[in-house]
Amino acid sequence: MEPAQTPSPPYYAVIFSSVRTADDPDGYEATAQRMLELARSMPGFLGVESVRGADGFGITVSYWRSEEAIADWQRHAEHLEAQRLGRQRWYERFELRVCRVERAYGFGAPADRP
Amino acid sequence: MEPAQTPSPPYYAVIFSSVRTADDPDGYEATAQRMLELARSMPGFLGVESVRGADGFGITVSYWRSEEAIADWQRHAEHLEAQRLGRQRWYERFELRVCRVERAYGFGAPADRP
Repeated sequence: MEPAQTPSPPYYAVIFSSVRTADDPDGYEATAQRMLELARSMPGFLGVESVRGADGFGITVSYWRSEEAIADWQRHAEHLEAQRLGRQRWYERFELRVCRVERAYGFGAPADRP
Repeated sequence: MEPAQTPSPPYYAVIFSSVRTADDPDGYEATAQRMLELARSMPGFLGVESVRGADGFGITVSYWRSEEAIADWQRHAEHLEAQRLGRQRWYERFELRVCRVERAYGFGAPADRP
């Protein structure tokens, strides 16, 4: 995984911080992959970063052009079903935060870095 | 690690997404621990979440009361020195994003969850 390449602010971020249960790792993995694929296909999607530690704690940050794009993603029928299963089966706990990215800078990699 | 317990929005988040070099793991760990301890002592600090995968990619999100609190943290002398070493030694690449948290919700754990 690499940091997402995003445009100049302002844009939006969804920070999803979660603790996995030990249940249904295969079902979780398949759905997580499918949700990434689906998010990438949504209008206004800018990028995603995701990492989970061995202790089950993980952070996924997705980046979006607008709050409307986030609302459309959160209401997508297939995503709603995944959210339902997440609460029922896969997550012991989570916090979801919708943010407006105000400023950003980076170091390394992108060849066009000033 | 657990999701941070934060107050009702608005508040601020710093999303730090990074790729570690393979260099100086002990120096990195000691400084990372010290920076967490120092951040926790800063006025306006609300919480922190951090996870790094086996591939070297990691996300740390710190939460703050205000943009001023973030600016004070970013300018702290000991933190500036850690930032310098980070670019020189520990990070192959990073992206840092300062955001305003607009809305938030959670699931599980905190006993007082509605």
